[in-house]
Amino acid sequence: MCTKVLIVGGAGEMGQWFARFLMRQNYAVSITDIDPTAKEVAKKLGAGFVEDASETAVDFDIVLVSVPIDVTEEVIRSIAPQMRAGSLLMDITSIKKGPMEAMKKAPKGIELIGTHPMFGPMAPDLRRQTVILVPVQGRSEHWLPNIRELFEENGAHVEILTAEEHDQIMAIVQGLTHFAYIAIGVTLNTLNFEVRESRRFMSPVYEIMVDFMGRILAQNPHLYAMIQMNPEVKNVHNAFIAQCKDLAKDIEKGDVERFVRSMRSAAAHFGDTEAALKRSDKLINVNIAELDELAQSVGIERGLRHLYSGAVHVGIVEQVTPSHIILKMRGRRTKLKIENIQLLSTDELLQWKIDNLRHHRRDISVALPEKVQPDVIVRIISGIDGVVSAEEIDTYKIKKGCSSITFRIVILGDKKPKEVQGAVEELLKGIGGEIR
Amino acid sequence: MCTKVLIVGGAGEMGQWFARFLMRQNYAVSITDIDPTAKEVAKKLGAGFVEDASETAVDFDIVLVSVPIDVTEEVIRSIAPQMRAGSLLMDITSIKKGPMEAMKKAPKGIELIGTHPMFGPMAPDLRRQTVILVPVQGRSEHWLPNIRELFEENGAHVEILTAEEHDQIMAIVQGLTHFAYIAIGVTLNTLNFEVRESRRFMSPVYEIMVDFMGRILAQNPHLYAMIQMNPEVKNVHNAFIAQCKDLAKDIEKGDVERFVRSMRSAAAHFGDTEAALKRSDKLINVNIAELDELAQSVGIERGLRHLYSGAVHVGIVEQVTPSHIILKMRGRRTKLKIENIQLLSTDELLQWKIDNLRHHRRDISVALPEKVQPDVIVRIISGIDGVVSAEEIDTYKIKKGCSSITFRIVILGDKKPKEVQGAVEELLKGIGGEIR
Repeated sequence: MCTKVLIVGGAGEMGQWFARFLMRQNYAVSITDIDPTAKEVAKKLGAGFVEDASETAVDFDIVLVSVPIDVTEEVIRSIAPQMRAGSLLMDITSIKKGPMEAMKKAPKGIELIGTHPMFGPMAPDLRRQTVILVPVQGRSEHWLPNIRELFEENGAHVEILTAEEHDQIMAIVQGLTHFAYIAIGVTLNTLNFEVRESRRFMSPVYEIMVDFMGRILAQNPHLYAMIQMNPEVKNVHNAFIAQCKDLAKDIEKGDVERFVRSMRSAAAHFGDTEAALKRSDKLINVNIAELDELAQSVGIERGLRHLYSGAVHVGIVEQVTPSHIILKMRGRRTKLKIENIQLLSTDELLQWKIDNLRHHRRDISVALPEKVQPDVIVRIISGIDGVVSAEEIDTYKIKKGCSSITFRIVILGDKKPKEVQGAVEELLKGIGGEIR
Repeated sequence: MCTKVLIVGGAGEMGQWFARFLMRQNYAVSITDIDPTAKEVAKKLGAGFVEDASETAVDFDIVLVSVPIDVTEEVIRSIAPQMRAGSLLMDITSIKKGPMEAMKKAPKGIELIGTHPMFGPMAPDLRRQTVILVPVQGRSEHWLPNIRELFEENGAHVEILTAEEHDQIMAIVQGLTHFAYIAIGVTLNTLNFEVRESRRFMSPVYEIMVDFMGRILAQNPHLYAMIQMNPEVKNVHNAFIAQCKDLAKDIEKGDVERFVRSMRSAAAHFGDTEAALKRSDKLINVNIAELDELAQSVGIERGLRHLYSGAVHVGIVEQVTPSHIILKMRGRRTKLKIENIQLLSTDELLQWKIDNLRHHRRDISVALPEKVQPDVIVRIISGIDGVVSAEEIDTYKIKKGCSSITFRIVILGDKKPKEVQGAVEELLKGIGGEIR
């Protein structure tokens, strides 16, 4: 029988993510949510819907709490007493101390695993993502191996921490980096600095930095507020603001030596800055390389895969700007945003054409010496440019030592069939055949 | 005759960069520098060396000042009076107001172009880099088109600004972004936070952000100090610190609504955060895709190009960790840092082998009908896996309607020549030939 999971807050973005993920892993998922659209969401997900969690929590093997941080503890306190012994209570909030304290008050016999999936609802899957698990001594032993395996089998990197360790590390890893990016964004707003306008003055390095700031500003601000509500961030913010003031003072006073000392010592503490430099170089070069290849493709047929719809656009590249590409297809022009597309390689484009175009079929009969092996000829014909496939469909003897063989060839849909047929016939003549 | 350029401060990193760049463009470059190794540097560069700039400045068409910002104005003041009418004075500092004021005091008849190359000495070339030029009304007209063309022809994006516009924009584009990253680095140092250790808890997004911080910490701190000495940054720093304090206060008070409002309004001001999100997604996915492909290559032969030495390593992938890859080549194991290598595609690896291995040569004689066209057969043989090239080296008639043709085939160095020869012979038999 399937493991039954109830996702409390299952209509939220992360709740839906987990519903889809767990259903793919053959869990029987139901959701409950105070959101009035929750029932519809459940239907769309193909998940069960539970109106009153307190009545039905007893039926589930796992209750996963996926609600905003500011109500997580309250929801845990109200649902835990309804759960049955041997079942598992999990949360997925990005702070662990408060929620874990609340979870520990659950009736004995209920297992507990605090969970922090370090990704947002946009993540397509768990590959290369990190999930932090916070088990409780004596209260996680049965379920922990299963849950760990669930994440690891799907490509996640799992780390086990205590709630205290988690909150301290996250106060920096998420707390400080988000904070700094958001503060930059707010500052640009205050100074009325036009980011779009400023792209003209950006090097590839700045462009990437600005894009990551934009990335964070694009996210759900409530989620980001909740991450900042980690009590450990206060010290981190204070330390950061103090360092900003200190650096700003050095700069204002023109104290180059002190600034240089701070930066050097930070670099020494950071460790392998050289590796960071090279990794970032690599990313920058990937960025440049694609734009260069696009720019060099003007006048050439290319295939572009739309990263979000999955659709493939094939046409002659007419124009490439830093933000757009214009593709001409049978007289029609299509303008695509560069951030939405991925350039297909020649092989990928060919494969797409083979899979998607309506191809031409031609039969070619040829007189060849009897000892010729038709399967070898088929292989040779298949290698000709524009031929999708070839097969021998008929062979009979014409005269002593001489057969007539008919090959059926499939010609790529966007090639001129006459030209490809001509090339095949030239080849057959070249190996001594006579076209009939 | 070549345009003669004197680079003042030509032994510095950027000075050397410009010396190499200009020599590649066929400028006659000399350098001068107070650095005691300057003469050796000039020799290594293949540039001229000038001991006393004040005596020889008169001989040059262009004097390019490439010295630290804090002495730029002084150097400009001392060299400008030595230059000859019609020549061009340029600087390459990242602040423009002060240096331009100093340049404007140059004797009449000397042209002036303030220059800010927005890249560091690590940039391999000008592709996709931005160069900001600050001309002076009535004093740049002759040289500006040449200098602009010099940069643009080499792939740079050139922007023309006034000194004031430049300093205001750069106070944010460079001033604020560097400042925030450096402040984060200094904070991590103060908090004694182990960056290396924390990588275990990072998602692909954080890894990239941390790498860009490391990237900045890896640079010359003096250069970064100089960029911060832009007088316009003071306001920007103050605004940033004020916003940090404000946000930190909202968070401490638990004022989620105010935090959310600030973030929303910053996002609205930023503009197209969706595009930023997607561009950053693309980069993250490129990062993941290469690591995935490496991980899936265990047990398979792959080619890895070292990004810095250019050397290509070919071998069976034995192990892939998040930081290293171990390649087994003829019993020897080589451990390579992932940030230093680029995975070659199958086609790239094949091309490398064709260009670099010692290949095998075999001659194959075959009896074929006289009407066979040897060039067609050569083309067919060349398409066989493992064949680098083929040619017809001898043909004579054996009997009526039948020729003996000898083909010389070159077999890829790492293939078993017997196997490839066998495949060629099978094919020749398949088209009715008789191996002799």
